[in-house]
Amino acid sequence: MSNRQPIGVFDSGIGGLTVLKELLGRLPDESFVYFGDTARVPYGTKSAEAVKRFTRESVTLLLDRGVKMVVIACNTASSEVLPEFEGEFPVPIVGVIEPGVRAAVAATKRRRIGVIGTPGTIRSGAYQSKIMARLPDAVVIPQACPLFVPLVEEGWIDTPVTRLVAREYLRVYENAGIDALVLGCTHYPLLKPVIADTVGEGVELVDSAIETAREVARVLAERGLAGSGGGGEFHIVLSDTAPSFGDIATRFLGRRVPDIELVSVV
Amino acid sequence: MSNRQPIGVFDSGIGGLTVLKELLGRLPDESFVYFGDTARVPYGTKSAEAVKRFTRESVTLLLDRGVKMVVIACNTASSEVLPEFEGEFPVPIVGVIEPGVRAAVAATKRRRIGVIGTPGTIRSGAYQSKIMARLPDAVVIPQACPLFVPLVEEGWIDTPVTRLVAREYLRVYENAGIDALVLGCTHYPLLKPVIADTVGEGVELVDSAIETAREVARVLAERGLAGSGGGGEFHIVLSDTAPSFGDIATRFLGRRVPDIELVSVV
Repeated sequence: MSNRQPIGVFDSGIGGLTVLKELLGRLPDESFVYFGDTARVPYGTKSAEAVKRFTRESVTLLLDRGVKMVVIACNTASSEVLPEFEGEFPVPIVGVIEPGVRAAVAATKRRRIGVIGTPGTIRSGAYQSKIMARLPDAVVIPQACPLFVPLVEEGWIDTPVTRLVAREYLRVYENAGIDALVLGCTHYPLLKPVIADTVGEGVELVDSAIETAREVARVLAERGLAGSGGGGEFHIVLSDTAPSFGDIATRFLGRRVPDIELVSVV
Repeated sequence: MSNRQPIGVFDSGIGGLTVLKELLGRLPDESFVYFGDTARVPYGTKSAEAVKRFTRESVTLLLDRGVKMVVIACNTASSEVLPEFEGEFPVPIVGVIEPGVRAAVAATKRRRIGVIGTPGTIRSGAYQSKIMARLPDAVVIPQACPLFVPLVEEGWIDTPVTRLVAREYLRVYENAGIDALVLGCTHYPLLKPVIADTVGEGVELVDSAIETAREVARVLAERGLAGSGGGGEFHIVLSDTAPSFGDIATRFLGRRVPDIELVSVV
């Protein structure tokens, strides 16, 4: 395993580009291969079995590209598969759940934490159980927000509809006394202003993308895998591309997306 | 080909159950095999290439079950693939576009017609060009409504959010003078009350599910394939099942869904 090999980043679609964006900012000496399984997106409303199978295929695809590490930048995939994947692959695999949990535990003072995500992520109970393992007397209030992903993909980042949907989903946190809210889906950082206004002051939003980039830096250092210059490049591979891809991806990545490579996985 | 063989009904997910519901009501002497490609749903936001490949595999799966006819109860699949599929398979294949077009042309007096659907259906231009082929001086106003499908799947059939989203998407029809609006997606019949209120009186909503059931009856009669009693049964096959499936499917089918069979296609 050479330090000059790229880091693989995987997501069910293009939401993981928010994680790639943080990785590019924090790790200028690394290069990246991003794989988005856009032919089968979304995972968040599918069964655990399907998610496991798709994720295993996707990680294998990245390993075939010679990556030195894989970041599973998808909350649903991280929560459904990561425990089982430990040790199955020859490179370190970092998910987005553990970093988010660590940040939430550090942020809360009242030990009352909200977690929002797709139905798959919330149903898995991954955030809830990992937070409770570290803070056994915490109160964790989970809430699935299935419409947030299509709203972001439609580009309705801050519209009256978005605010009304946020009010519906986040009503569960009214008077709930939480002081930290985990954004447990890679799409949600784009909705931060609306979510922050809805839950009000005094609630810290935990952005898994930022926390995951920190975790990746830590693991690279720990395993002696950190690159030493010549980084900053990234290559995007997708299993399908719809005409709206470019606009949405640019919004997620915060910069123009270069040419993409299409592969068939299904 | 025996008249006692079932009719195959295919959709990218479970939206096609609205078509199955109409078929069961109109054709009591027939039995049905429904296949929903729930592992890869939705098709409406994916590329034409992906939709073609997935649809070909799905039709083949139904043929392997010995169906005497295939109904492609998915607007996206019908619009992307049907012209190419003509003659490729040994049984009649009926889509949802042509029946909707015929009903819209019959309904309009002012020759001003709206068409709503997924981005894939609208982008394909299938409704637009087929209507213009029959009514060359018609004005057709298409509008993609990507949030309607997730709203229906979330069960938000008539909520303030649903009404606000409908107002946004259907604003294009204010003062546009249309007198017919094609519901070009199998999910949309569930939103009929909200859509009708939003576009106001004097606009006839064309429900492809109802029109397709009529077309299937016509083709069965024409080809001498109509069943003669012993029908009313249906079997549901899916490529994935999420925990929310039962509730949503019951809403679409208007009755309890029997045991389903899971198959792997991907």
